[in-house]
Amino acid sequence: MNNIYAIGIGLIGGSLAIDIKKHNPDVVIHGISRKDSTLETALSLNLIDKKATLDDLAHADLVIVSIPVDATVKLLPTILDKISDNALVVDAGSTKEAICKAVESHPRRRNFLAMHPIAGTEHSGPTAAIEGLFKGKTNIVCEVEKTTFKLQEKALKLFTGIGMRIRYMNPIAHDKHIAYVSHLSHISSFMLGKTVIEKERNERDIFDMAGSGFASTVRLAKSSPEMWTPIFKQNKENVIETLEEYILNLTHFKELMKENNFEAIFDEMKDTNHIKDILNGIS
Amino acid sequence: MNNIYAIGIGLIGGSLAIDIKKHNPDVVIHGISRKDSTLETALSLNLIDKKATLDDLAHADLVIVSIPVDATVKLLPTILDKISDNALVVDAGSTKEAICKAVESHPRRRNFLAMHPIAGTEHSGPTAAIEGLFKGKTNIVCEVEKTTFKLQEKALKLFTGIGMRIRYMNPIAHDKHIAYVSHLSHISSFMLGKTVIEKERNERDIFDMAGSGFASTVRLAKSSPEMWTPIFKQNKENVIETLEEYILNLTHFKELMKENNFEAIFDEMKDTNHIKDILNGIS
Repeated sequence: MNNIYAIGIGLIGGSLAIDIKKHNPDVVIHGISRKDSTLETALSLNLIDKKATLDDLAHADLVIVSIPVDATVKLLPTILDKISDNALVVDAGSTKEAICKAVESHPRRRNFLAMHPIAGTEHSGPTAAIEGLFKGKTNIVCEVEKTTFKLQEKALKLFTGIGMRIRYMNPIAHDKHIAYVSHLSHISSFMLGKTVIEKERNERDIFDMAGSGFASTVRLAKSSPEMWTPIFKQNKENVIETLEEYILNLTHFKELMKENNFEAIFDEMKDTNHIKDILNGIS
Repeated sequence: MNNIYAIGIGLIGGSLAIDIKKHNPDVVIHGISRKDSTLETALSLNLIDKKATLDDLAHADLVIVSIPVDATVKLLPTILDKISDNALVVDAGSTKEAICKAVESHPRRRNFLAMHPIAGTEHSGPTAAIEGLFKGKTNIVCEVEKTTFKLQEKALKLFTGIGMRIRYMNPIAHDKHIAYVSHLSHISSFMLGKTVIEKERNERDIFDMAGSGFASTVRLAKSSPEMWTPIFKQNKENVIETLEEYILNLTHFKELMKENNFEAIFDEMKDTNHIKDILNGIS
């Protein structure tokens, strides 16, 4: 695993590059990006050692793809075309079904491992990359049986080496569950931000009143639309389902308020309080 | 201001007691609570110096009321009945119209200052009290003109002394704005938690997949129903309005997804991204 090619060097790709280099000082990290300015920033931040292009991929031992999921679907077959027979390709996308489908019949399917490291912040781009982002976090691996065993082992060693717990799951279950615990949170946050911004013309006035609770709830509304639009597109059916349930629950809460049924309002909150126990250990 | 009586010694009352004592070592903090166990905990945590009852209020220089807002509305006239002519009473409630109305005709109205310190965490009770909670935070003061000038000055000195910025506002505007930047966030968080919990029977399974983004968005769902039910009740009309707009925005987002209008989805997120600039300095 001496030559690692990072395609996409933003928050995820850049943070992976930092941790992998830290735990494996001998590797050379080659950066590939559509934009040369991203590569220059990544070089200046020491996220990557060298600039590269897709045509260099024949020299790769490992290719890490951390780009918007629509770009991954398009580019992944080309990447597999270009690598050597012993190289491993992993992706870090937030959807898994479309990505696995995009390469299901590729002759080098066994060189690919579909992953979703559950880690991030609301920031994006190479300047958002941080050390230790993946420590203690879960890395969901899909269709592990479709990857050559030796390459599975290499990936396992690399990602547990930077502190991740590996969890195996099929892509359909992944996309369904992640819609609830990640994709819906982003929409609830974006629409909360929109609702408050729309209402308050004189922003300085109102946001003086906002505390850490609002900041926490609306934090994900800072996320990159470039990353998130294709995620919602690829996971459309699941995300719509979560949105429908969320809207029903909000509407029910509103109706209880209109009916002055504050006992039921109390119970709604009390019943949800046990999220405390569930969340222990996540944040 | 030597004798301070704290009625309610939870997250807010307890944290105020810590900071006030730290900046004014000579004061004696007397704790009053419905539950003796709360007072014992507060004593053992050094939040208060002595236990007291409402009948001791004649000795108070300052009374700080940090209890659920329905209890404040009920108790405030009695508190004003019991204090001496030179004492100041402040409350820390998250609603202001009903509280101001409850004492508008009280003969000691000029001894009362209505406040809302915009600070807190999702935890509650005396064990949730922390040092420095109010540093750099906003304290909204309502109907300041109805309070004796000398008592205004004392309050200003005390609360700026623990690091707060004072902002003046009328109670109706307060309740309208705070519905957007605080009350709605709590409901969006509670209903997000409910939606995810309901869906996922096997909780351990799903919540392994939850990351810091979900944890942040759902954090407020740990909040106390005892505190929040009366807030929603007192601010019913404003909260329902915010909920209606939030539900409309979510429904619109869902419809755009159903229509495969992902350009508009992108724009929705892009337009909300400037929450970044607005939030700078809040959290």
